[in-house]
Amino acid sequence: MKTCALTLLALGIVASTRAVELNLMPWPSQITQLQGSVRMDRLPQFRVQCTDRRVRMAVARFSEQLKLRTGMLPFPGPDNSQGPLIAIQCTLPGLAVQSVTEDESYDLIVEANQVSVSAPNPLGILHGLETLLQLVRTGEHGWEISSVRIQDTPRFPWRGLLIDVSRHFIPLDVLKRNIDGMAAVKLNVLHLHLSDDEGFRVESKKRPKLHTVGSGGFYYQQSEIRELVLYGRDRGIRIVPEFDMPGHAVSWILAYPQLSSGPPASRLVQDMSDSVRPTIDPTKESTYKTIDAVFAEMTKLFPDKYFHIGGDEVEGKYWDQNEKIQLWMRAHKIKDNRELQAYFNKRLQKILLKYRKRMTGWDEILSPGLPQDTLVQSWRGPEALAQSAKLGYQTMLSAGWYLDLMYPASQHYAVEPLSGDSAHLTEEEKARVLGGEAAQWTEFVTPEVLDNRIWPRMGAIAERLWSPASLTDVTSMYARLAVLNANLEWLDLRHRTNSLRMLERIAGSAPLEAVEVLASTVEPLKGYERGKTQPYSVTTPLNRLVDAVAPESDVARKINLLAQQAVHDPVSRLELRKWLLRWRDNDALLQPYFSSSKFLAELSPLSRSLSVLGAIGIDSLDALDANRSLPEEKRAQQLASIDEATAPHAEVRIMIGPAIRQLVEAEPVTK
Amino acid sequence: MKTCALTLLALGIVASTRAVELNLMPWPSQITQLQGSVRMDRLPQFRVQCTDRRVRMAVARFSEQLKLRTGMLPFPGPDNSQGPLIAIQCTLPGLAVQSVTEDESYDLIVEANQVSVSAPNPLGILHGLETLLQLVRTGEHGWEISSVRIQDTPRFPWRGLLIDVSRHFIPLDVLKRNIDGMAAVKLNVLHLHLSDDEGFRVESKKRPKLHTVGSGGFYYQQSEIRELVLYGRDRGIRIVPEFDMPGHAVSWILAYPQLSSGPPASRLVQDMSDSVRPTIDPTKESTYKTIDAVFAEMTKLFPDKYFHIGGDEVEGKYWDQNEKIQLWMRAHKIKDNRELQAYFNKRLQKILLKYRKRMTGWDEILSPGLPQDTLVQSWRGPEALAQSAKLGYQTMLSAGWYLDLMYPASQHYAVEPLSGDSAHLTEEEKARVLGGEAAQWTEFVTPEVLDNRIWPRMGAIAERLWSPASLTDVTSMYARLAVLNANLEWLDLRHRTNSLRMLERIAGSAPLEAVEVLASTVEPLKGYERGKTQPYSVTTPLNRLVDAVAPESDVARKINLLAQQAVHDPVSRLELRKWLLRWRDNDALLQPYFSSSKFLAELSPLSRSLSVLGAIGIDSLDALDANRSLPEEKRAQQLASIDEATAPHAEVRIMIGPAIRQLVEAEPVTK
Repeated sequence: MKTCALTLLALGIVASTRAVELNLMPWPSQITQLQGSVRMDRLPQFRVQCTDRRVRMAVARFSEQLKLRTGMLPFPGPDNSQGPLIAIQCTLPGLAVQSVTEDESYDLIVEANQVSVSAPNPLGILHGLETLLQLVRTGEHGWEISSVRIQDTPRFPWRGLLIDVSRHFIPLDVLKRNIDGMAAVKLNVLHLHLSDDEGFRVESKKRPKLHTVGSGGFYYQQSEIRELVLYGRDRGIRIVPEFDMPGHAVSWILAYPQLSSGPPASRLVQDMSDSVRPTIDPTKESTYKTIDAVFAEMTKLFPDKYFHIGGDEVEGKYWDQNEKIQLWMRAHKIKDNRELQAYFNKRLQKILLKYRKRMTGWDEILSPGLPQDTLVQSWRGPEALAQSAKLGYQTMLSAGWYLDLMYPASQHYAVEPLSGDSAHLTEEEKARVLGGEAAQWTEFVTPEVLDNRIWPRMGAIAERLWSPASLTDVTSMYARLAVLNANLEWLDLRHRTNSLRMLERIAGSAPLEAVEVLASTVEPLKGYERGKTQPYSVTTPLNRLVDAVAPESDVARKINLLAQQAVHDPVSRLELRKWLLRWRDNDALLQPYFSSSKFLAELSPLSRSLSVLGAIGIDSLDALDANRSLPEEKRAQQLASIDEATAPHAEVRIMIGPAIRQLVEAEPVTK
Repeated sequence: MKTCALTLLALGIVASTRAVELNLMPWPSQITQLQGSVRMDRLPQFRVQCTDRRVRMAVARFSEQLKLRTGMLPFPGPDNSQGPLIAIQCTLPGLAVQSVTEDESYDLIVEANQVSVSAPNPLGILHGLETLLQLVRTGEHGWEISSVRIQDTPRFPWRGLLIDVSRHFIPLDVLKRNIDGMAAVKLNVLHLHLSDDEGFRVESKKRPKLHTVGSGGFYYQQSEIRELVLYGRDRGIRIVPEFDMPGHAVSWILAYPQLSSGPPASRLVQDMSDSVRPTIDPTKESTYKTIDAVFAEMTKLFPDKYFHIGGDEVEGKYWDQNEKIQLWMRAHKIKDNRELQAYFNKRLQKILLKYRKRMTGWDEILSPGLPQDTLVQSWRGPEALAQSAKLGYQTMLSAGWYLDLMYPASQHYAVEPLSGDSAHLTEEEKARVLGGEAAQWTEFVTPEVLDNRIWPRMGAIAERLWSPASLTDVTSMYARLAVLNANLEWLDLRHRTNSLRMLERIAGSAPLEAVEVLASTVEPLKGYERGKTQPYSVTTPLNRLVDAVAPESDVARKINLLAQQAVHDPVSRLELRKWLLRWRDNDALLQPYFSSSKFLAELSPLSRSLSVLGAIGIDSLDALDANRSLPEEKRAQQLASIDEATAPHAEVRIMIGPAIRQLVEAEPVTK
């Protein structure tokens, strides 16, 4: 029987969302369902009392999305009838540069053929319109919105996504579509990691070697950055730039060797195993002159108040080996590298202060003497968050939200900024916890892959940052996340489209469905395991199964639940048997193709493993159906086979192991 | 068991293409397979001996597509190794304005780690690179191209696609992606139907009411037309404009009422049933003054030699009712409306001659005195083609290639320009048959739907126009067409993507897969049936099942074949039974949702019909398996049920009727 793994996502979830009445994500802080509904089968009229350009643009986007999602045409109805009135009102104009201090709340009322969105600030209107769009659904008479009142305000004012554009360059159009996605889930900060050992990604007119020598040819022109900043502003997204230093700075040093505290750099870092990664020399005055020149330029280009200087993973070894630096340290009574970095940071902060910016850095910068206006981004663990807040620093969380580590949405959803050490903060201290950022590092991410790394889980993190902390129901989260992710493709995000095309590419002349069946059961290796399996460089194509599949297998999640039920429930066993049969027989469909395709060949052992797991599952189901126990020896054998079949291969792992294990371990229920 | 109808297309076909070694479409005129293959797992180097800008652009597009299709990165390999050398050589530069007379042949050699494409004209290089891209496939060691020599030349010099941008406006970006698709299958003419009763679609600076009053707000700016013409030229596509007159001209008359031979127009035509459609008055000199002014402008904007004046379906009734016209006709000894139109055409031809254009028109213009340099486009039937050629006119075929009529690819593929009356033409006369054009009229087509109307069948027509007439194997055609259509999505064509999204939109909270199962078995009504079922206007949303599905059901084609085999073959019966079970049980999955969604509700009777067909099929299979005949009465009953279940509903029809009928009518084979 034919199957289509990729659509199972939408499928499984849509079926289970019947219980969730409204497919909102992030869930609003207060919601009152009212009687009736407003028909939305004509393009609405707008009455806008709000002079901000952003609101006008948001209204245009709303109409465009409404047309796309409903298939309505850009004409009035045949009888010249108009849709409902949407009244929009904001109290005050927003700030010229969007700030973390602005009120983003809104009040949305849908009732009696009228809709109103009001907010103290244009940002609230933007969020309210996104909520309104999520409310549009099909009803008995066509498109409609259930009557409802939503009073909504974010829990945290800093809700971000970091995209690393240094390890792999991400073109402007890909960033733009991801900004659209961010706006859809009410995120408000795009943190761009703009320089690292692999490349410096912004045109610099003051120090042009940074982008000519230091980028390998891949960088944003200043006009593109301005375009991006405006694009973000129009959607309520601040763009926070990061120039990582004094470590992660080979691109700077390749361009300007005098910055180096060690050897010069002969080329940008290409291979993950490259060990020559010199650090910036914090003891030379010329270093600060260069940085000041670049910051003068970049602080103008990026209008946001916050400016990120990185500061993570500083390689002290080049400082240790440099005699001049050692002499300088003794002369200045700086006793270790940590103090030296602290000195460096203070110098950077002074430069940034001159340009009216607040310095931001990774949690390594948290050391005595760190200027009080610094924002500390916690990544090594949540402890730095509480520590920073107690010490009077603004802070935000990224630990637990590293999207490149391939953890499931449920795990990210469970990360709570105000838990652990932070749970005991005073109210004043808690107010310093601004929120957090998901981080998408791109060692294993190309533009083609990016959307499918971010979006299958981003909605869950966005909800954690926006919605009440009390929201913890994972089933509801997954149901709403699936609807969100289907709708995000209307913004031209390509998490599903590209995944499908990549699987087609891998399949070649083999049956796509069989490749999909296999693909739907696997997940990429988690954590930092992938980098250890084979040598990788920035030029290695990322076009294999591990790159094509989503970080999380919806099929495995579903099947692991189904297996729990199957132990007791014969109907679930019938359903489960269909899946197991398909898995058992799938390998035979692919076998003829393995030898003729490099991309399929590496899947051969996986495919056999899936077949083994299917066969074991069927065996166990047979036993359960016949109400008999498996012989102990056979059971042990099967458990060993499951372990073997679910061992990593080709940098992925089959994830239905727990389901099969449950079946093997189940004892028949005597009726 | 889960299913995914949309991917069955790729699936079914890819499986059956194993026999077809090379997935080329259109198939080249001469092909010699050589030993070995060239690896293509690094970006190739190019050596271009050809100064034409178009070749440079084509090389860039080739590299871009190669990266997309293979997942290669835009870097050299880890060892700085380069891919194979592609040597490109053209003998002469092309003409400044692409002409129907240019030599489009090319010679492609893939051998010994080198590729060469040579051609007398840059156009041949463009075609050769498209062929080369189609040759790239996965092999044992990665991406590769089998060694081969292809000497290729088109059978017809005019290979076109007409897109009607008047009935529904088609934005520039949608036209562009379709031009990319056209280039991929070596088409060379995009014929734009730019004016009709529903709108005039080009900005006119000389007669601006044409686009301000006559367009309803939807038109191309002149700068956009220039952009489009250049976009086409870069891809070897001529853009031929059509301004339809003297009928189909309400947009002209709304803008300039003095053109009318009847009442003025009060608005653009919106409803298909609108009967007030005044015709241009050919008896006034002021008419020609207006037309001359517009042609002066438009002939400059569209550099192509050919200029289409429509001339089809002239409504004579307004001429009959107009006393002045009748008087004028008598005074000028013009005895009927046909002669009057001939007079009109001669006047137009004189104007066009002044601007060095060749007049082109639909076959109604073929009447005595038609200027000899006119190109006649045959649409009402193939007869006009032979007739025109015999009378010394250039001519081309559209009859049989109307894509809006929803016929299967096989039917379009069977249309042969030089058959019927044309088979007996002399060589000289045959040379006047320039080729043909598929025509995509857009009464029922929005930009969202367009790609899925054109591309599921366009490759077959392109092959008919390019390849040797001897190519008639429908199985091979469908196999290669499927591969082509999968690859066209790399050009961002959205025939599959949009279809899937539209089905998701229809499904709403119902299981998408069940909607797909139903959708995969239906086809839209054929011919002109759809317009008769309900009132339609240009504002009617086209977002129902009939709009979402492809013109042709690949599942039905496959199943109808499978049923033939199943009569004799138990293994085919096993496979068929799975499909039948799924269809029988599919309705139960959808039933809970019909009442709550307008879009699903109309599918309820269809869904029940599919279930009935599935059940009847299973009954018949049971009988076959048990080697017994169905009682005659039951058989008659079942055949009646099949008729009922396959009657049109919701403007589609379930297409598996023939399969089920075969099963019911089968007599068991006694072994």
